[in-house]
Amino acid sequence: MTDEASNRPEASAPKARAPRGFADRRGRDLTAERRIVARVSEVYERWGFEALETPAFEYADALGKFLPDADRPNEGVFALQDDDDQWMALRYDHTAPLARFAAQNWETLPKPFRRYAYGPVWRNEKPGPGRFREFWQCDADTVGSDRPEADAEIIAMGCEGLRAAGLAAGQAVIRVSNRKLFDGLFDAGGITDPMQRLTALRAVDKYDRLGVEGVRLLLGEGRLDESGDYTKGANLPASVISAIEAFLASAEAPGLSRAGVLDAVSGAARSGFLGAAGDEALKELAAIDRALTAMGVAQDDVRFDPTIVRGLEYYTGAVFEAELLLDTKDEKGRAVRFGSIGGGGRYDDLVSRFTGQSTPATGFSFGVSRLASALRAAGRGAEDATRGPVVAIVFSEDD
Amino acid sequence: MTDEASNRPEASAPKARAPRGFADRRGRDLTAERRIVARVSEVYERWGFEALETPAFEYADALGKFLPDADRPNEGVFALQDDDDQWMALRYDHTAPLARFAAQNWETLPKPFRRYAYGPVWRNEKPGPGRFREFWQCDADTVGSDRPEADAEIIAMGCEGLRAAGLAAGQAVIRVSNRKLFDGLFDAGGITDPMQRLTALRAVDKYDRLGVEGVRLLLGEGRLDESGDYTKGANLPASVISAIEAFLASAEAPGLSRAGVLDAVSGAARSGFLGAAGDEALKELAAIDRALTAMGVAQDDVRFDPTIVRGLEYYTGAVFEAELLLDTKDEKGRAVRFGSIGGGGRYDDLVSRFTGQSTPATGFSFGVSRLASALRAAGRGAEDATRGPVVAIVFSEDD
Repeated sequence: MTDEASNRPEASAPKARAPRGFADRRGRDLTAERRIVARVSEVYERWGFEALETPAFEYADALGKFLPDADRPNEGVFALQDDDDQWMALRYDHTAPLARFAAQNWETLPKPFRRYAYGPVWRNEKPGPGRFREFWQCDADTVGSDRPEADAEIIAMGCEGLRAAGLAAGQAVIRVSNRKLFDGLFDAGGITDPMQRLTALRAVDKYDRLGVEGVRLLLGEGRLDESGDYTKGANLPASVISAIEAFLASAEAPGLSRAGVLDAVSGAARSGFLGAAGDEALKELAAIDRALTAMGVAQDDVRFDPTIVRGLEYYTGAVFEAELLLDTKDEKGRAVRFGSIGGGGRYDDLVSRFTGQSTPATGFSFGVSRLASALRAAGRGAEDATRGPVVAIVFSEDD
Repeated sequence: MTDEASNRPEASAPKARAPRGFADRRGRDLTAERRIVARVSEVYERWGFEALETPAFEYADALGKFLPDADRPNEGVFALQDDDDQWMALRYDHTAPLARFAAQNWETLPKPFRRYAYGPVWRNEKPGPGRFREFWQCDADTVGSDRPEADAEIIAMGCEGLRAAGLAAGQAVIRVSNRKLFDGLFDAGGITDPMQRLTALRAVDKYDRLGVEGVRLLLGEGRLDESGDYTKGANLPASVISAIEAFLASAEAPGLSRAGVLDAVSGAARSGFLGAAGDEALKELAAIDRALTAMGVAQDDVRFDPTIVRGLEYYTGAVFEAELLLDTKDEKGRAVRFGSIGGGGRYDDLVSRFTGQSTPATGFSFGVSRLASALRAAGRGAEDATRGPVVAIVFSEDD
């Protein structure tokens, strides 16, 4: 702004603009999102999950990312100090507040405690095209059961929720695996460093995008991508890398049933590199398969896939990832792959941060706006998004 | 905490508690609130109002309460600095963000622009029993029409919304007046100081609670209340105070129709103390009455009441206040008066803060949680709040 401009009286008027990374949502888009949330809620309530809404704010220490004495804990979250000097932060997901709520009210809750939640979450991240700092998530969680059937229930309900939201059979799949497969594999290979394990898991998480070759580099020294950025690798020994590759390949045969995948992975396990934790994982997955089958969940709706690990650190067992399969087009008619629209898994240690007592938990979360965008891109959701007649009122007027 | 306690290892575990003034909401209460919002939204959409959701954050200057160079603009709002040093604040109502949105998008919006919104608002105030720092409001607004029929439309729709939310005939009333009645009265009495006018309006706003005697004191020197607190008065001259009293009394006869109230007030106006602005107000109210009658709004659902002024500064014309009439009881069976559950009015200057151009607007807002509480206290809303059957799933288990 020039000095001249700032001297004009209107220079003191505030500029009308939404904050960077935040968007206004209107009419049809909003109606579509709300319909998704309403239909999914109906499914969740029918399954006996109770609605729970936690506040926008949590004390920063309850979010679990920060040291209580951090100078300004705003890495990734929007934080401010209350008038009694305590740091509060806007929730960045619905899971951390649930863990706080469950720990706070454990004595009086029905057990296991089943709840669902939807609403905005906030991320203090660099905004970009299609990348917002406020967006809606819809979660369902069971706290207090370590049984694989609780995982199966969440998965089956997630399937039904996606169907209710407007995705027909064959348009989405939930892929399921178990973190303990890799725990066992790392144990057997002598990999004990938690950071090295996490780096390796993150490499496997990119299998879908980078293929065997890319993952092999990230499991080893590292990888230079096309843009010239170098990503440091997990530096696993060659023997462990080839074990992981054999393990991933064991389930690559197309069209395998869930039980078929377990058989293929067990075959790999017989050669000894899945360890005790891996055996535990296979037992849990078998129990999940039995429960899913008892609930009538089709093989095409839920598949087992050992390449699914999820990026987040806090998962301890079963992990899920919901993937869109339907063909979508952007505004210019170009094909778009939406890929993952949600995920979840077992997180048995989040509540114990507060109470010191183990309280197993499992849950699933999907992005509401993302799902609405995908349905829109697939040409769905728009046609029935318009409501009933608009009444035009004519006033008798004499002035 | 003693030194001993802080040395114990568990002292480092975060305490599980929601921040002060914020509440978790569960099951039945939440279902009741959501049903209110869904039913009211249906009404608003049927009237041609478009859903709009603005972000949780606005730039602090857009909220209009602060100097842009204030050191830390957190008076009444939750504010923080973004990574480019701009102050952002969580919205404290849905009106200020609407004004920002309308100013930003005015060129492309249908005119007049009718929208509705619901969601949480945040107040950085001292929390107390039943007094939260996060609560839901539901708003409907028309931007771009200065016609009294736009006010009437909002009022009639507000009535229908409250009915849809679960309030039967006779359980609520919307009282309507016009700020310009007092503008004219002050003009005629030579009261020009804006602060003195506002103090006087706030005194009249307490008529319902304090009666003629209490208001007379607050219009004059001031009033000592029962707790021993002294409230400074508006220091109006005695002649203006008695003019106001005569004016308020002019519509006190019970059972008057809307037109009857206007006649009674016009009678007072004939004696000359309502000024030109008062005459304007009477004309606008007459037009609102004609439109309400044309829309079939009963005299008992919307009444004219010159004691309604609303506390907020930004109203410029018609003002509305929704009052609960139904008998409610608290948990101990004691009678509770909920009183006001919403309000609104014409605010012709909010958008022009951004654009410099006059953009008249009118709207109505009610408290969702407050209305849900009232319905619950009246023994309503609970009986149909439970959803369909809960499905119990029995897993066949062999381990």
